[in-house]
Amino acid sequence: MINKLVEKIKKTEAPVVAGLDPMLSYVPEHLLKKSYAQFGETLEGAADAVWQFNKGIIDSIYDLVPAVKPQIAMYEQFGIEGLKVFQKTVDYCHEKDLVVIGDVKRGDIGSTSAAYAAAHLGRVAVAGNRFSAFDEDFATVNPYFGTDGVQPFLDVCKEENKGIFILVKTSNPSSGEFQDQLIDGKPLYEYVGEKVAAWGAQHMGDTYSYVGAVVGATYPQVGRMMRKVMPKAYILVPGYGAQGGKGADLAPYFNEDGLGAIVNSSRGIIAAYKQEQYARFSAENYADASRQAVLDMIEDLRQAW
Amino acid sequence: MINKLVEKIKKTEAPVVAGLDPMLSYVPEHLLKKSYAQFGETLEGAADAVWQFNKGIIDSIYDLVPAVKPQIAMYEQFGIEGLKVFQKTVDYCHEKDLVVIGDVKRGDIGSTSAAYAAAHLGRVAVAGNRFSAFDEDFATVNPYFGTDGVQPFLDVCKEENKGIFILVKTSNPSSGEFQDQLIDGKPLYEYVGEKVAAWGAQHMGDTYSYVGAVVGATYPQVGRMMRKVMPKAYILVPGYGAQGGKGADLAPYFNEDGLGAIVNSSRGIIAAYKQEQYARFSAENYADASRQAVLDMIEDLRQAW
Repeated sequence: MINKLVEKIKKTEAPVVAGLDPMLSYVPEHLLKKSYAQFGETLEGAADAVWQFNKGIIDSIYDLVPAVKPQIAMYEQFGIEGLKVFQKTVDYCHEKDLVVIGDVKRGDIGSTSAAYAAAHLGRVAVAGNRFSAFDEDFATVNPYFGTDGVQPFLDVCKEENKGIFILVKTSNPSSGEFQDQLIDGKPLYEYVGEKVAAWGAQHMGDTYSYVGAVVGATYPQVGRMMRKVMPKAYILVPGYGAQGGKGADLAPYFNEDGLGAIVNSSRGIIAAYKQEQYARFSAENYADASRQAVLDMIEDLRQAW
Repeated sequence: MINKLVEKIKKTEAPVVAGLDPMLSYVPEHLLKKSYAQFGETLEGAADAVWQFNKGIIDSIYDLVPAVKPQIAMYEQFGIEGLKVFQKTVDYCHEKDLVVIGDVKRGDIGSTSAAYAAAHLGRVAVAGNRFSAFDEDFATVNPYFGTDGVQPFLDVCKEENKGIFILVKTSNPSSGEFQDQLIDGKPLYEYVGEKVAAWGAQHMGDTYSYVGAVVGATYPQVGRMMRKVMPKAYILVPGYGAQGGKGADLAPYFNEDGLGAIVNSSRGIIAAYKQEQYARFSAENYADASRQAVLDMIEDLRQAW
């Protein structure tokens, strides 16, 4: 799957992942109205509106980007109905041949991580059959438990040809509270990055590992350092755009081959029509605004790689 | 909710939480057969078997324990059908007046944590209405993102009278890989524990905080230290029984008031009938074996508090 991701990035010339993190406040009025009319002002109605919103965006951008990253929390908040839409979104993106990174940030003790890995990347055995639950291509993983919390994900990745991105340095303002703490003069995130490199060596694709890392766009100097610590790890970079990162700042996240990083934008793409810059599209044509935002992002990122 | 938990612990004289972490391999043959006959050897069939299994155990032990802790990964692996059973289990435990700790170990950047907090503890706004998705009483939270990843949970807890347990020192063998690393001579978990105490001061119940902590049973010396660092935090103690912890080892997790800790057992309770000690109950009477295991656990824990 890492080979497919690299191939698609080369083909689209776009190291871009579109974050499908819909807030209800992003969904244009005309879609809300239609879904509420059909399913009521209920969780089902809200979930349907999110689904219609997603579908419009996916249809509009699938030829431009290699990958999407649905953030499961945004679906989980609508309960079962929301999770059905998460599943539908994953399936629909697969129909469009997009690589799907499930932004689930799971992680637990071994036996529990094994269940999460089965849920998101693998299959679960029921009598003689094996079923996929959500079937993303990659999942994000929280490292706090250490190796035995990560290993079950690695095992499933090997079996299913899937990948993971492990949280190393996150993009939020207080990420430093624990992640920057120095251990023998070395920040915790570097420590985690070294583990990512070691775990990744267990499962290599053609040029990059199936084990990638999350390093926020908001800390370019960290990007530079982590690029060296984990040369074979694809870096998933959140925090571009709405969170403050800019294209030119992202050069340190890439390797000399122009690969090695994929930059996420969520709000900046899916809620583009709400920005002054794209207001001309209007809410009715929100998906066209998203397409333009992707084109502009690709252009902006050309300064980085 | 922390007041209710403390009250129920006093009333039952059982600082015990039953971990509802069903593996399909724990479900007795007669339940599997029945569910597969009705729903096929499918995710729906498997989920129904888990539900019947849970129901039997809950009916058998609800008068003995103050709380249950369903581990969502075990349900998530069966996809939507599994998550419906997670929800049914939470609701059914509430009918039985049990405190429900959703073992979800969520945590993300602020806006995403807010969605998780809404999903598990709060409500989500849809037009003029507000709906609960899963509606647990407590949730477990991963601290890796720092304060702004935790704050949305605190906000929802205040609004909804709910609580959280933050991962401090987990019970798994490799928990030390990151959690034990020394920062200015102090392990990371102690650092996290100090934050738990600070976050907890924001939201106090009568005697304990709405913000608790997870500290594994497998490290009693850590329990002793963390008890002092977070005197007002309820400690949720995993790792008892199947993972190696014993009652007498758990004294350091309790305060002098005999409170302050609640000990989880999952496999040891729900799969008791598979242990030699309870083999006399047979698979047909698995729920009676679970009841006996709870009674024995309560007895064992009397040495600790």
